[in-house]
Amino acid sequence: MKQKGITMTEIDFAGIFPFWDKLSNREKTQIIEASYIENYEKGNLMYRSKDNCKGLMTVQSGQLRTYIVSEEGREVTLFRVHDQDVCVLSASCLMDSIDFDVVIEAVEQTEVIVIPSVDLNHIMKSNPYVELYMYKAASEKFTEVMWTMQKILFQKMDQRIAQFLIDEMKHKNENVLEVTHDEIARYIGSAREVVTKGLKYLAEQGLIELKRGKIVIVDHERLEKYNN
Amino acid sequence: MKQKGITMTEIDFAGIFPFWDKLSNREKTQIIEASYIENYEKGNLMYRSKDNCKGLMTVQSGQLRTYIVSEEGREVTLFRVHDQDVCVLSASCLMDSIDFDVVIEAVEQTEVIVIPSVDLNHIMKSNPYVELYMYKAASEKFTEVMWTMQKILFQKMDQRIAQFLIDEMKHKNENVLEVTHDEIARYIGSAREVVTKGLKYLAEQGLIELKRGKIVIVDHERLEKYNN
Repeated sequence: MKQKGITMTEIDFAGIFPFWDKLSNREKTQIIEASYIENYEKGNLMYRSKDNCKGLMTVQSGQLRTYIVSEEGREVTLFRVHDQDVCVLSASCLMDSIDFDVVIEAVEQTEVIVIPSVDLNHIMKSNPYVELYMYKAASEKFTEVMWTMQKILFQKMDQRIAQFLIDEMKHKNENVLEVTHDEIARYIGSAREVVTKGLKYLAEQGLIELKRGKIVIVDHERLEKYNN
Repeated sequence: MKQKGITMTEIDFAGIFPFWDKLSNREKTQIIEASYIENYEKGNLMYRSKDNCKGLMTVQSGQLRTYIVSEEGREVTLFRVHDQDVCVLSASCLMDSIDFDVVIEAVEQTEVIVIPSVDLNHIMKSNPYVELYMYKAASEKFTEVMWTMQKILFQKMDQRIAQFLIDEMKHKNENVLEVTHDEIARYIGSAREVVTKGLKYLAEQGLIELKRGKIVIVDHERLEKYNN
């Protein structure tokens, strides 16, 4: 899973990290040499903040999901990360102000570049721009979590399901989605039975069609409007 | 409500803001001269991020509540701020990464020191430590919101009510609380009817007594244990 020592020179660090030009050449070399690539299969657990302190992860391909879990095992998705986006919560141990547990898993086949915490910590201490970057990135996630929270608390369940289907369709660029009711429930923080009921309702309205293990979006425009 | 130009030299800026010793004398003078004190009565609306961009608020006395509101007017409390704590979300316009709407109100008679956004913005641009402070403070609120979210999503309603009563008792240092069921509902993000039912249940267990407009905590120890 871990590919250490592979050539990192092709990675566009300067394009990913706005603090790159504030680093000394020595710091740049340190990051390039310490970074490594990891590959995960769909469903793999990538990170648990209780267990370890991985570092900054940048998604090269695929998609990851950050979620919280109750003691009884109920999951609520906070946000997803894809397309060169940086996942900062996997380095939350470096940020005193961030003190809560999350779990990160691969939603599909996913490749990430990891800058390990131990190396980052070194540079953060000497360079305030790196620390500022980390906290800014955390605040962006704060914003995403607030939107998620408002959806969970204020939106009706059928609207949340409609929203999920539209997001998923846009991301996958397909109108046939291979996703189970249980998976949808975990994404939107609900129970499978509730999702099944909501999907049936959307199907009765002629917005989607339910097939074995598949959901077909038949009226994209109305589904999108449905949500507003 | 606004007291501009009053003597600010008694305020312990260095004690409140860790970035104080990173400021030039000119920047310090600028903040001291721009700052002002505001007083609010219980229930006063202090800030709405949709409407304006106030600045950093430090609570001198009293308590404020930060919450979100649905289109239908349903409120969910995110966190409270008191005792020299700084409220950074009232300056969220200065932080690009923070992009969601909150409302802030005075829970009781409250006095705050305001550093206006326009002056802060000036200093933030020239001094990365001020910007870093803002984002760190925002990340602390991120942590608080995550704890709140986990409570709302995962905790049972009677436990949330018990938790609220204990917090309130500790903060007020009194075991007789003058709070309506409606107010509790708004704090814990629920409906009045649900709170009334929960309170009755706690009263039946002998943990509290319900009187007209008052809740008396009769068994503090069991109420605290109840929550775990």
